[in-house]
Amino acid sequence: MTAITVRHRSGEYFIRIGADDRLYEQLAAVADSRPTLIVTDGNVAAHWLTHLQTILPHAASLVLPAGETAKTLVTVERIWSELSALAYGRDALIVALGGGVVGDMAGFAAACWMRGIDFIQVPTTLLAQVDASIGGKTGVDLPAGKNLVGAFHQPAAVFIDLRVLETLPQREYAAGMAEIVKAALIADAGFLDWLAKNAGALIERDTGALQFAIRRSCEIKSAVVVDDERETGKRAMLNLGHTFAHAIESVTHYKQFLHGEAVAIGLVLAAELSTHECGLDASVLNRLAALLESFGLPVHLPAGIDNDALIDAMRRDKKHRHGRWRLVLLEAPGHAVIREYETADVIRGLLKRR
Amino acid sequence: MTAITVRHRSGEYFIRIGADDRLYEQLAAVADSRPTLIVTDGNVAAHWLTHLQTILPHAASLVLPAGETAKTLVTVERIWSELSALAYGRDALIVALGGGVVGDMAGFAAACWMRGIDFIQVPTTLLAQVDASIGGKTGVDLPAGKNLVGAFHQPAAVFIDLRVLETLPQREYAAGMAEIVKAALIADAGFLDWLAKNAGALIERDTGALQFAIRRSCEIKSAVVVDDERETGKRAMLNLGHTFAHAIESVTHYKQFLHGEAVAIGLVLAAELSTHECGLDASVLNRLAALLESFGLPVHLPAGIDNDALIDAMRRDKKHRHGRWRLVLLEAPGHAVIREYETADVIRGLLKRR
Repeated sequence: MTAITVRHRSGEYFIRIGADDRLYEQLAAVADSRPTLIVTDGNVAAHWLTHLQTILPHAASLVLPAGETAKTLVTVERIWSELSALAYGRDALIVALGGGVVGDMAGFAAACWMRGIDFIQVPTTLLAQVDASIGGKTGVDLPAGKNLVGAFHQPAAVFIDLRVLETLPQREYAAGMAEIVKAALIADAGFLDWLAKNAGALIERDTGALQFAIRRSCEIKSAVVVDDERETGKRAMLNLGHTFAHAIESVTHYKQFLHGEAVAIGLVLAAELSTHECGLDASVLNRLAALLESFGLPVHLPAGIDNDALIDAMRRDKKHRHGRWRLVLLEAPGHAVIREYETADVIRGLLKRR
Repeated sequence: MTAITVRHRSGEYFIRIGADDRLYEQLAAVADSRPTLIVTDGNVAAHWLTHLQTILPHAASLVLPAGETAKTLVTVERIWSELSALAYGRDALIVALGGGVVGDMAGFAAACWMRGIDFIQVPTTLLAQVDASIGGKTGVDLPAGKNLVGAFHQPAAVFIDLRVLETLPQREYAAGMAEIVKAALIADAGFLDWLAKNAGALIERDTGALQFAIRRSCEIKSAVVVDDERETGKRAMLNLGHTFAHAIESVTHYKQFLHGEAVAIGLVLAAELSTHECGLDASVLNRLAALLESFGLPVHLPAGIDNDALIDAMRRDKKHRHGRWRLVLLEAPGHAVIREYETADVIRGLLKRR
């Protein structure tokens, strides 16, 4: 078991990482004295709800429909209705047991219930463990776009139980690895080397390797976020590969790729552009693509994608501002930079060369 | 024209108070360069929307149904749909033109749109001018209770146009005076004397008297709120008379009294209890009742109210915690204190004596 402390504008919380029930000692202690609601989804509930209920015998629980399509105001209203029915007040606690979608909705519900109650994350996907449980972003999608309605609301604590990864489907597991690789790329060349050396152990879901990789990713993300909680500058580094990824997801109608898979392709595109624009060594690009592929991740744009449609989708991305193209690129592993361009020509050139 | 600065945890904003269009100079300057949506309701729109549109010619506007029954998630979703349709981003600005209900909904919509955009208040009721525009509380009602879902979100600025009071119905005007009297009672005996001396001018809606009274009330509330933004201690002083008022509103099903009218009765009940519990001079109680009555406010519980039902409603109020009765009382004008009681006996005694 290991733990890190995440500092933010209005305080701090800890992330505990482990693979046995000692992990939950403090969770049980906190929840024991407070009205507690476990929020989860059908997929996760089938594997892990009963287990968490043995840790939190007094907690009520609410099982939501699974999947990104359920990430709506209607679903969040179900959480608020449940809190109403339970007559929970300001001292109530929400425990989010699930992936990013459950965490986003449970966190948003907690942010707004009586103008803010505590919530605790028990993330059950690798992606949520290394990414969504840090930074305080919560919210839901509207028909017009993703995450249009939400709040910044920091968790009171995060408990990362490595055992939940045992039941995670292979594609979702690989998708989480993409964000771990991204963390290494933007901030820690040594960690990137470690990932290459330990790819085999990670593919085997070795507990020790996972604990190290998750901890290091969380440290990197929290160090970036603590400096820039409201996403005005430095936090943009975390978007390495993501402007491409969001556009890829959009033009494939969120059906062909998991988010992490699109991120993998986006990282390779960003690295390739960096070899032209920032002097990134071409060997880094090749090693990156090999590492991602070893995890079973895609590294090429699929055939049939229209370059203009992709560029249009990038233009609509909310990180594209004031008519300028703002991209996170790499000078070297561990050294991300932000470059702005007046036009999409640099991207058009990249896409033509592929 | 006059102005005060309100400090809060994450910055500060100004409240400008005036009776001509110079009031809006800064509003026009800010909104001119940003996508702006005026949110108002049908009643206010009929009198004042056209005027505000001359100040903000580039702004879009959205007219919501009027009244507390419209203060729901469904109505807030209309604001988010409008922002979606307009393709407004993080630099958008919402201007809330209306009373407390419009301010609460527009503020909540702004708090959650892309996790927080700026909003500006143009309060059009006396109650909203002295009360709702300070403190950052926003939210909506659920079937299970009032203000169950919301956020703390400070306005970027508040513009109090005294001319809007010209079209305010008499009962609503009087209801706002109840909160002004409350501000004086909890924090400023000299202001209470001033109110008694200037009651005639205030009844006539004299601009000079109103400007002074509104400014002083805003100063008092903001001084309390700045010390206790998240309502853990001192802010409770603002609830003088309100535990009674909420219960009166509840047992009369929110039909018989406006909130400010219930507050007037609650203030008298709190003052009467204070004569027994805190040594408040009985002459203060009499002068208070006379002042409130001069504004046309009720000061007695209506006939037919069941004491037990009233006490039950007080018990359900969210300020009643951990089984203890927490009441704001007065030792003297300007000196509020918080007293806790194990049982409702002290309230039962008060209600029996009436």
